[in-house]
Formats: sequence, structure tokens, C-alpha cells
Amino acid sequence: MTVSTQLPAIGIVQRTRKSPFFDATQQAGVQGFTVYNHMLMPIFYDSPEADYWHLMNNVSMWDVAAERQVEITGPDAFKLVQLLTPRNLSKCKIGQCKYVPLVDQHGGILNDPVLLRLGENHFWLSLADSDGLLWAKGVALGYGLDVNICEPDVSPLAVQGPKAEQVVADLLGDWVKDIRFFWFKEAMLGDIPLIVARSGWSKQGGFELYLRDSQYGAQLWDLVAAAGKPYGIAPGTPSTIERVESGLLSYGNDMTIENNPYEVGLGKFCDLEQPVDFIGKAALKRIKAEGVTQKLVGIELAGDPISGNAHYWPIYKDGTQIGKVTSSAYSPRLKKNLGIAMLAIDHTTIGTTLDVETPNGTRSATVSNTPKL
Amino acid sequence: MTVSTQLPAIGIVQRTRKSPFFDATQQAGVQGFTVYNHMLMPIFYDSPEADYWHLMNNVSMWDVAAERQVEITGPDAFKLVQLLTPRNLSKCKIGQCKYVPLVDQHGGILNDPVLLRLGENHFWLSLADSDGLLWAKGVALGYGLDVNICEPDVSPLAVQGPKAEQVVADLLGDWVKDIRFFWFKEAMLGDIPLIVARSGWSKQGGFELYLRDSQYGAQLWDLVAAAGKPYGIAPGTPSTIERVESGLLSYGNDMTIENNPYEVGLGKFCDLEQPVDFIGKAALKRIKAEGVTQKLVGIELAGDPISGNAHYWPIYKDGTQIGKVTSSAYSPRLKKNLGIAMLAIDHTTIGTTLDVETPNGTRSATVSNTPKL
Repeated sequence: MTVSTQLPAIGIVQRTRKSPFFDATQQAGVQGFTVYNHMLMPIFYDSPEADYWHLMNNVSMWDVAAERQVEITGPDAFKLVQLLTPRNLSKCKIGQCKYVPLVDQHGGILNDPVLLRLGENHFWLSLADSDGLLWAKGVALGYGLDVNICEPDVSPLAVQGPKAEQVVADLLGDWVKDIRFFWFKEAMLGDIPLIVARSGWSKQGGFELYLRDSQYGAQLWDLVAAAGKPYGIAPGTPSTIERVESGLLSYGNDMTIENNPYEVGLGKFCDLEQPVDFIGKAALKRIKAEGVTQKLVGIELAGDPISGNAHYWPIYKDGTQIGKVTSSAYSPRLKKNLGIAMLAIDHTTIGTTLDVETPNGTRSATVSNTPKL
Repeated sequence: MTVSTQLPAIGIVQRTRKSPFFDATQQAGVQGFTVYNHMLMPIFYDSPEADYWHLMNNVSMWDVAAERQVEITGPDAFKLVQLLTPRNLSKCKIGQCKYVPLVDQHGGILNDPVLLRLGENHFWLSLADSDGLLWAKGVALGYGLDVNICEPDVSPLAVQGPKAEQVVADLLGDWVKDIRFFWFKEAMLGDIPLIVARSGWSKQGGFELYLRDSQYGAQLWDLVAAAGKPYGIAPGTPSTIERVESGLLSYGNDMTIENNPYEVGLGKFCDLEQPVDFIGKAALKRIKAEGVTQKLVGIELAGDPISGNAHYWPIYKDGTQIGKVTSSAYSPRLKKNLGIAMLAIDHTTIGTTLDVETPNGTRSATVSNTPKL
């Protein structure tokens, strides 16, 4: 994110949908938004750096309703979901979350949602920023599968940070402490229907509360805020600083349809030996056999704190472009500029020195284990 | 659009893609953006009302690169395109544009692009704001069609307003005056490859210049600005005021997947008698036979100038909710508040009086022929 006092304004119309927590986030002082799955998503309250420290030290509550769900039900639901991802889901249990990259027949990544299995043939795909709904619907229709696919009234509210578990336990009961990472339970909070998952787009721990009825948005927000008060909860958002430090990838930033899973470190989620002919299997077999020509790595950039890249920054080696910075942030904790970069495979060894062209001049950089990808 | 000095900021990262005209629009003083097809799109320069008057009286140039294209080529390209829309394309000529709503098998509208036929089996779908690319790819894959589908490097720049024709004629030659409405020609402007279409998202006349190589973005912008200088050209954007006055619908505002073409006045584009079994045919036959339960109408709202609805405004009749305002604007030319509204079918007669719940209180309103839908 470009952090400056000169950020342009965002227009708000019906098309830029409002989350059930929108009014609450306004009251909580949200200062900026992005648009994600056609919905406004808060990007900072105090400042990105202040929000980051709060996440690292305490606990934050995030309106991530823009992580829209694709609900897939019906007799062929499992069949469709397995068709959509290279990940082998044969052992996925009800109550489990799985990170499931979706690829097309060429192996190009279309989205990287988290799958929730709510029943034998009942799934949600908790989307990154692309209309996975349309992909799933198109594939299902073309293949003649007997499924129902829709965007249900489901809106995640994330509680993240070292004190998140205690907040959610105070809110819902100590039983939430038994939920393992990437598992979930259904729960009622008074009249409010929830899915409580131990997940979230940070590595600081916590939960995502999937609100299943948007009329309770304000009420859920207030209940979480109240439960978090003793722990110093503050409104926050997915943090570019934290997620770059942690090596968490962002669809649309670090990967697009132009990339395959092997380039972006997601090869471990591709089971090419499973019997199912999932979409992209032949392409991924060929790509894996041939080896990739580029891959994502962590880099450190020298010099003064950067403000993050608003677009790809070209990377050069001896005057030749060999890649680009896809995401970046100054880490106030490590006191380093960190980046995620797509580099030609010959230049991906740790310690390789590079030149990065930023809007404010060229910076030297080094392929690094921080962030760890 | 909510027009105020208190608009929140927009975050800018790689994921919010930049158009080839982005730098030029910054230099031209753009003040606000929306995100449309994962790309930043300018929404105003001077003020929405000043920009509107310039469009009405002179000529404006708009960065509408966010109207991304889905390119469909290959032996089955025509077959796929006809499958995707209820509109009968059997008479669509090379060089012609067609407005082609896309619907799913239930008749729900997924997008309402403009189709450009570049060759026998070469099409672009110039998208509204949803990933039509994923829908087309999913359908094609599932149906086993022999096509290539991609998002090409194509970025429309619109020149709109009463003096637009003269600007584009001065830029490219008087031959452009012979291009009929919704037809296009290929052209080179020096080294710059273009498609020149008489089209655009206003009713003030003009062209869309589809730039076919993004490296020329700044150059094309400057050439259009220079050609327009004698005519007082100014940077502008699609105008909510003008398009509401003109009854031009906006996908995501006035229609969504929840709506069918008959509800939103697009029934005339549905040829249910054509031999092709396009997607949604059976559903649309049923809907047409049964008649719709709601439809879009124009309304006038009483009272002081409104600033446009940021979300649906509920509409009541005798205390019962019977619909919602989907778009609205104060028309400085007509000195009236205009709206587009989805109303239960029993309340759609011209002259019907209504109560609209706005954030600033209830307003009386009347079903109207202005805007004409």
C-alpha cells in the first residue's frame, strides 16, 4: 500500500458492496478502503504501522467480509470441489479447512481460497479477490454436475493477534481452545449463527468468525469489541507489513493467472498422483517435469524505509531485467525493508544481489530467507 | 457516488491494477477512483457536477481501461459466444458491436458487456464489473469447446460529448465520421494500434479508442488531449449524473445475478425463438411466460438535491417495502432528483407515488418517464 497523506478518494456506490460490519467500521474510525470481491474492505484505522503493532502485541478485529464465500452443495459437490483444485481432498474431514489453490487447464492460478467442509457435500470456498463463483458455476454447468452454487449470506470477522484466543474464549467459551489450526465448529452466540474457525490471514494466531446472517453485523462487532476490551482489542485490517514479514501470499499481488503453483511455492499442495483428473493436472505434470523458469523469493532491500510498492518494481541483475517485486513493506520490528519478488530461476539463490527500480530510484537488494517463502 | 469532502482514502497496491493511462490521469488531476475489474478507474477530476457539465457541453476524455476485454478466438469461438448470451448473434457482422447480457442457467445476469466481432471467430467482450473471463473459461472448458480465452492487452479510452466526433476526426481523419453507432474500424495512429468504435457509456455521442498496446498509453492520452484542445477537451469519467439522466444501467448497481433480463428492461435482447440452446434459454422462457414480479423504473424524488445513494435505499408504499433505489443523482440540468428503482410490478405505473428512505430521512417520490428505462 502507498501510505501517504495524499491518497486519492474512493467512490462509494451500491456496486462497491458494504459489509455487515461497514457502519461499525465507520464508527471505529476506518480511514481507508480497498475493493475486494466487489466489496469495500478496510485497510487502515490509525496508521498501517500503528495497526501492525497492535496486531503484533495485542489483538485486532478485522472486517474481512470481503472474503466472500462460494457455497457448493448437492450430490456432486465433492466431485466439483476436487475438480477445481490440485489439492487431494480425499482425507478432508467435515469441520476442516484446507488451503486450495484453484487453477485452470493450463495450471494458471485463478484464486487461492480456503475451503471449509461443512458436510459430506457442503462446502464453502472463502475467496481471495476474483470471482471464483463464476468459475465454479461455469465449470459445473459445462460438466453437467448436479450441484447448487451461490454466494451465501456469510461474512467473516477475524480476531487476530497473541491475545485473540483469550478474547474468543471469553466470548464463546473455553471450548474454542480445543479447535485445532484450520478446523472449525458451528456455534450460536445468542441468536447469532457462526462458524468459528482457527484461521486468519496473519501468523499471529486467532480465529475467523464466519457470521451467517448479516442482520447481526453490528451486534457481533459490538460483542467482540466488548469481549476484547480487557485485552486492549482495536479495530484493524489485514496488515501488509505483517503478511510480508510472514511470507503470506496475496492473490493479485504475488500471483495471478499468469503463474502456476510451482512458481509461487504452492507445489506442495498439488497431488499429481491422485486418481482424479482435476482441472490442470496434465499441465501441472508437464510444468513439474520441465521445472519452473521463475519463482517467488524473499528479498531484503537496502536503504531508508520504503512505503510499499503500488505496482510491480522491476528487478535487474547486471543491467538485465530478471524479475519484479510483487509486494513489499518496511518491517518496523526487524528494521528492514522486506519484499516478495518473482525472479528468473537462475537468480534465486539466497544471497544473490539485485538492483530494484523504485519510483524513488534504484535500490540494492538481496535474495533472503526473510521473508521465508 | 457519495460526494463529500470526507470520502475515505483508497489503498493502491499491485492488485488494484493501474491502467496504461494511470500516470496521465494523475497528472491531469484525478481526485478519486473506484476499483472496476480489479483496476483503478477514475471517478472525478474537478467535481462530479463540473465534470458532468463539461461532458454535456464540450468533450471529455475518459480512462475506461477498466472495461477489460475477454478475447475469444479459435474454431468454436462463435459457438461459445452465442452460448453465453440470449441475444441472437447470427447477423452480427465483423466490425460490429453488440450489447450482450450474459446470463446463467437460471437467467441471472452475470455481466452486460459490449461484444466486438473482430473476425469470423475472433471476439472481445468489453466487460462490466465482474470476472466474465472466469465464466467464459469455465463454460468453454466444461463444454469441451475448442477456443482460446484470455484478457488481451487492450485498454479503452473514451472520447465523449457533443464535440467528440470532431476531436476524433482531427486525430484520425474524417473517415471516422462514417463509422455508424456500434460499429468499429481498426486503425493505426502512427505506431499506436487502435480499434475505433462509435460507442461509449453516455448518450452524448462519441467514440471509444481501444488501445491495443499498453506501452502507448501516455502517448495516446497526450495525442487525444492535443487534438481536443481547440474544442476545450477536459479529463472526465463515466458520469453517474449523465447516465442516470439517460437511463443507462450499471451492472452491480441496477442489476446483479439476482436479476433476470426481463426485470431490468433487457428482454428485447433475448431471442428465445433462435435455434441455439444458449445458456438460460429454458429459464428465460419460463420467466417470460410467467411474467416478472418486479421491474426497474425511473423515479423522481422530491426535495433538495440528493448526493446519490451509496447503497440501496428502501422504497415504501403505505408502509410496506415494495422496492429499492438502485442508482440516483441530482440532475443540475433538469433541476430534479432522479433515480432508478426496482419496484414490485404492481407499483410501476407512471405517476405512482412512493416513499423513499434515505440516510437523511424519508422523501416522497414518483414513478416517472425521466429517466426513461
